[in-house]
Amino acid sequence: MTAVGTVYLVGSGPGDPDLMTVKAARLLETADVVLHDKLPGPEILERIPEEKREDVGKRAGGEWTPQEYTNKRLVELAREGKTVVRLKGGDPFVFGRGGEEMEHLAAEGIPFEVVPGITSAIGGPGTAGIPVTHRDHASSVSFVTGHEDPTKEESAVNWEALAATGGTLVVLMGVGKLPDYTAALRDAGMDPETPVALVERATWPEMRVATGTLETIVGVRDEAEIEPPAVTVVGEVAATRERVVEFLRNRTGELDSPDAAATPEGEGGDE
Amino acid sequence: MTAVGTVYLVGSGPGDPDLMTVKAARLLETADVVLHDKLPGPEILERIPEEKREDVGKRAGGEWTPQEYTNKRLVELAREGKTVVRLKGGDPFVFGRGGEEMEHLAAEGIPFEVVPGITSAIGGPGTAGIPVTHRDHASSVSFVTGHEDPTKEESAVNWEALAATGGTLVVLMGVGKLPDYTAALRDAGMDPETPVALVERATWPEMRVATGTLETIVGVRDEAEIEPPAVTVVGEVAATRERVVEFLRNRTGELDSPDAAATPEGEGGDE
Repeated sequence: MTAVGTVYLVGSGPGDPDLMTVKAARLLETADVVLHDKLPGPEILERIPEEKREDVGKRAGGEWTPQEYTNKRLVELAREGKTVVRLKGGDPFVFGRGGEEMEHLAAEGIPFEVVPGITSAIGGPGTAGIPVTHRDHASSVSFVTGHEDPTKEESAVNWEALAATGGTLVVLMGVGKLPDYTAALRDAGMDPETPVALVERATWPEMRVATGTLETIVGVRDEAEIEPPAVTVVGEVAATRERVVEFLRNRTGELDSPDAAATPEGEGGDE
Repeated sequence: MTAVGTVYLVGSGPGDPDLMTVKAARLLETADVVLHDKLPGPEILERIPEEKREDVGKRAGGEWTPQEYTNKRLVELAREGKTVVRLKGGDPFVFGRGGEEMEHLAAEGIPFEVVPGITSAIGGPGTAGIPVTHRDHASSVSFVTGHEDPTKEESAVNWEALAATGGTLVVLMGVGKLPDYTAALRDAGMDPETPVALVERATWPEMRVATGTLETIVGVRDEAEIEPPAVTVVGEVAATRERVVEFLRNRTGELDSPDAAATPEGEGGDE
């Protein structure tokens, strides 16, 4: 009888291979199979030997692989005695459905281990010179997703409560619905002058940052053509970048380039 | 004239050296000096060659080093042309005063780079089988610190708003004030039956987990003698652990040990 293999639920971090954990990097070498989607980003996926890779992101017809298939496949491979890495962008438990996969594995009696990764919600703003908490500006930080589960009833996110926390708010996958939730936050009484930053492809070589306010950011997004994947930071901390960017080095060791995004005319220079 | 060195603001993650990023591990090898306090934990600090280490946590007399000293020392070393790592436990920008250090460096014209790390607020619960978000239970997650800045006016944390978000709440450095904020959350209308988990020394070899409810957790803490450093997870996700722990492997590859903490008699078994 074949011994059951272990499944590692592994976060790959925000995209820069150097921001993978030592353990994640090692597991990509030693695993028999790596189940992944596109979210870890091209630089990390390129490092995985072709023969180990199984893409469970999109299937032949351009359809998304149902979660049930991924769950079933993880169990199947482990029962064949394989050491399996389930590689997820960011951290496996931050809006990654890792919780469901873990519960499925346990229900099927498959041993598993969790290897956390750096979420782009913290590492993205961080590498852009934006601290998600700050002693002077933010005693708390909240993370939400701009992509609501469509099977849920009308938005489960309580924007009013989030606005009332007074802390930083980071929205993952929040490019498309930016107009909706910036309006919701203004309606909840948040100051329209609150600084907002968009960090596109955080830590990737082509990373871009655009900044504005709760009032101007939709125009900034449109002008700069910011596209997913990106995280949105709402709060006083988003203004930190402009105070430090002159001396901020990026991942190549160069001084960070000025923001790609132009500030819309008449809005004043936020950068 | 000596060229000014670069300061790297580096997160060391929750404590397991394997959960450092590839970049952090490399920088500890290549840096000239590493300024640190105790928070990265013994396993990581042991790996830094003695001659590179400068402890800015506690000074001779048992006093904390003032932030001003650390700020000044970073600038001084960079001006000597040194490559400096400022190593901080977890992520440098999650309640770590990294934001202040970054602003000081920029104000002094010192080039710097930010190297994010895994925060114990995500990686701690994660490795214990607790996903901070879950499609079925938590559309948002908020992080706060149990240690308020004593110079601030009466608690800047709005517990009422945090309770109203309906999402997971993770309290860092939250062992001592557990009675205060669990009471505040119940007063804010949070169900006393809400699951709560304490993760002590997350990802360290001697990691322990104790679980209860908003009502019972203070007793659980006392009985198990949970001590700092620990993170508190409040929310439905905290109950996930009991459903999966039988098949959860820990960092040594062994199946996770049952919780060290006994459930107080008469409270029913939460594990």
